[in-house]
Amino acid sequence: MNQHTAYGKLEALFSKINNLSHLASMAHWDAATMMPAGGSEARGQALAEVTGLINELVSASETGELVEKAEQDRDQLSDWQQANLREMRRQWFNASCVTSELVRAQAIASSRCENAWRKLRAENNWLDFQPLLSEVIDLTREQAAMRSAASGRSPYDSLLDLYEPGQTGSNIDSIFSRLKAFLPSFVEETVQRQKNESVIRPAGRFPEKKQKALAMELMKAIGFDFEHGRLDTSHHPFCGGVPDDVRVTTRYNEDDFCESLMGVLHETGHAKYEQGLPREWRAQPVGKARGMGLHEGQSLFQEMQVCRSLPFLRFAAPLMRRHLDNDETPAACWQAENLFRLNSRVEPGYIRVNADEVTYPLHVILRYEIEKNLIEGRLEVRDIPEVWDQKMQDYLGLSTGDNHRDGCMQDIHWAHGLLGYFPTYTLGAMNAAQLYQAARNAIPDLEEQISRGDFEALNQWQSQAVWSWGSYYSIDELMRQATGETLNPDYFIEHLKQRFAPA
Amino acid sequence: MNQHTAYGKLEALFSKINNLSHLASMAHWDAATMMPAGGSEARGQALAEVTGLINELVSASETGELVEKAEQDRDQLSDWQQANLREMRRQWFNASCVTSELVRAQAIASSRCENAWRKLRAENNWLDFQPLLSEVIDLTREQAAMRSAASGRSPYDSLLDLYEPGQTGSNIDSIFSRLKAFLPSFVEETVQRQKNESVIRPAGRFPEKKQKALAMELMKAIGFDFEHGRLDTSHHPFCGGVPDDVRVTTRYNEDDFCESLMGVLHETGHAKYEQGLPREWRAQPVGKARGMGLHEGQSLFQEMQVCRSLPFLRFAAPLMRRHLDNDETPAACWQAENLFRLNSRVEPGYIRVNADEVTYPLHVILRYEIEKNLIEGRLEVRDIPEVWDQKMQDYLGLSTGDNHRDGCMQDIHWAHGLLGYFPTYTLGAMNAAQLYQAARNAIPDLEEQISRGDFEALNQWQSQAVWSWGSYYSIDELMRQATGETLNPDYFIEHLKQRFAPA
Repeated sequence: MNQHTAYGKLEALFSKINNLSHLASMAHWDAATMMPAGGSEARGQALAEVTGLINELVSASETGELVEKAEQDRDQLSDWQQANLREMRRQWFNASCVTSELVRAQAIASSRCENAWRKLRAENNWLDFQPLLSEVIDLTREQAAMRSAASGRSPYDSLLDLYEPGQTGSNIDSIFSRLKAFLPSFVEETVQRQKNESVIRPAGRFPEKKQKALAMELMKAIGFDFEHGRLDTSHHPFCGGVPDDVRVTTRYNEDDFCESLMGVLHETGHAKYEQGLPREWRAQPVGKARGMGLHEGQSLFQEMQVCRSLPFLRFAAPLMRRHLDNDETPAACWQAENLFRLNSRVEPGYIRVNADEVTYPLHVILRYEIEKNLIEGRLEVRDIPEVWDQKMQDYLGLSTGDNHRDGCMQDIHWAHGLLGYFPTYTLGAMNAAQLYQAARNAIPDLEEQISRGDFEALNQWQSQAVWSWGSYYSIDELMRQATGETLNPDYFIEHLKQRFAPA
Repeated sequence: MNQHTAYGKLEALFSKINNLSHLASMAHWDAATMMPAGGSEARGQALAEVTGLINELVSASETGELVEKAEQDRDQLSDWQQANLREMRRQWFNASCVTSELVRAQAIASSRCENAWRKLRAENNWLDFQPLLSEVIDLTREQAAMRSAASGRSPYDSLLDLYEPGQTGSNIDSIFSRLKAFLPSFVEETVQRQKNESVIRPAGRFPEKKQKALAMELMKAIGFDFEHGRLDTSHHPFCGGVPDDVRVTTRYNEDDFCESLMGVLHETGHAKYEQGLPREWRAQPVGKARGMGLHEGQSLFQEMQVCRSLPFLRFAAPLMRRHLDNDETPAACWQAENLFRLNSRVEPGYIRVNADEVTYPLHVILRYEIEKNLIEGRLEVRDIPEVWDQKMQDYLGLSTGDNHRDGCMQDIHWAHGLLGYFPTYTLGAMNAAQLYQAARNAIPDLEEQISRGDFEALNQWQSQAVWSWGSYYSIDELMRQATGETLNPDYFIEHLKQRFAPA
């Protein structure tokens, strides 16, 4: 690329930003996996510095001017360069349409609220949490208003757009209303149906070392590239690092191996997306993943569509037994059918992160409805617990009452000022189901391949349908190219019926 | 600090640089300990980016102007601020007196030469290495000339000053001439004397896990703070990270535990210096370690003065036995006196990094004489092997002949363009001996304390004599405050006599 054109200068700038982000990603990973406690203050300062520096570079008025100029010569750019320029504009716009005063105020308020949350949640102390959360929500409303004024989107849509570009509240409303009509009664029926199932549970201890060996063997089998990544331990599992060096983490429960194993496979879904991003565009905005919904979709594709399925468990069962068998676990526990029943139990509960595939979307819809009303000023922070309790009763038949710890205080997202993010979890579940159905259509013997541990054709399909495109297409266009239509909740509903209520 | 004064702006700038350096340090550590092979290209680019950015910030003309301006208001600054300003000028001067074209050319030439070195050294291929090294040396000469023109120091002194501020070749000449007069015959006498010593060697395998447990117990005992640091494994042992989070690494040889253990204790000496730097000045130039000679001095203080001494081995012997004993190793091996003899064997050899305390300075003097002549134009690269062989015969009684691999091709320093660095190893050995003698004078029962594993008084002494001063004093002034005089080689010679030729 010619470094003297406006576009060439932008590529150089975003490559610099990519290099700085690399260091930030690795420092984040290290803080979660390796860093001794005494290192956290200096680390926090170093991370704040580089985050501020990146934001400064992206939001600079010179960056905006270069984008304008490059757009005038757009016809001299290749398709990928044009898409890259579009994503550059997006990043510049998102970074520059809020004032730096607001960014600073939000950083302070959310850091105060998050720190208090760690203590107050444990104490079930909503009253002291409420004013801190109110401050964060007020500033988030202000942010949404600023973004709305600049973009013409509604305030909530302008937040949503940060995580799921192009998505709107009204579209989500119509998708979620399909789920709301289907799920509550389906949950009840499934719970009833599963009452008659006999499930043999694993017993005894499953040493961390053995769980890790199994996890790594399965990661390798499904296509994680250990030449370009690692598996480590952290308090909260995540997928971090950079596409050339993806860092997956998990935590181990020595009484229950399923939790960690399915967690690793979930994060490996994220990791394979990162490892599959287009090599020559990785340092540029167009080479990054296409939004949080699709990212979550790739992890749920791996975990829910593939790894919790009976064909996969037929492949994995002997490996699981070889690594983990002990004297306390009955041999029948290691049969694929039993492992399938074990990994598809449905049970309404208070906690989102522990929820199963069927009840999970209801946790998300509840949060979506509340946060949308908060941003649109139809709900105040003080009223959250009451609305939460009511919706939990309506959707899951559970009352949270005054159990705020396991109710509206369970997630860190709002304390962090992260509103507009929750819907991406369920958008992901839905695009995963839709993409998996398309893969099934494209590979007639897919489930037979999976049951013998052959993931080559599936990985190739995912690569050409999703991974290799980075952010070249919009999410709607990507779904259309890969599946023939934009996001359609019917695939997810059909998937649930097939898995949980087979004819 | 007032952010609006020139000095205040400089503190803010160097704090930013410190934060960026934090990320670079951690990314370096990760590359050596954790990173999968496939991550190296992206990592290299990220590190080059941040190194370039730091160099840009330090060398900027605005930085120089701020220094000038702050110096005009110097009388409004505290002593520590004044010392900080002096170190800021030093950093700005060192970064700005070479052209960025030269820096770039050096980076390319040294990277090419280093990469070739890895292969050519293994092949003992001097002929193909010579032109690549010549290119690096030519550019280093150019660098030295630029620095010399700006500083008024001689070309070689201007390189030396980068690693050992204020040191000169003529001073080193006179110090090293004392060592050259003493060491060769002392080596011979010691080898003769040790021929009559009986040493019982450990035998069998010493599993990595057990070696690590012992190393960590000893690190803790001598004062390494694991709340602010870690021990990991890397191909080349080093001490990295940041003062609040020091990363020590080692490698384990399961046939010989002494090598790794003494290596860890050596790096722990570096680490304790870092952990002991003045807390409130750590982000600023004045809060950094006072040169490479003193840094090496702290590691050799730990390893050579303390940990290879008989009193320390009296304390460590039972711990070593508890962790490492096996069926093959005779019980008498674990006696302190035997471990002392084992850890103080003298034997002339080809390889510097394997050399003992007595022969090591001769390896350094040889390199110092060659590199000084190279920079001063009295020696050409093609003539290195012949001079090397001659000096090895003169100083150590060994001929390298055509064994370039174990001769002049053994170190990476020159390939990397690092000239002026080698002398700091032996300056360190000498300041370690001098400082240890001062500590002995200050703590009359020091060796008794060490033999029962009590390092509190010694650590306190080192802290108030060295660590807590950062770069506040010049090295001469620091040595004068701590020991009553500037560097004096007699202490080192006396230490060798006491250890290797007791009356």
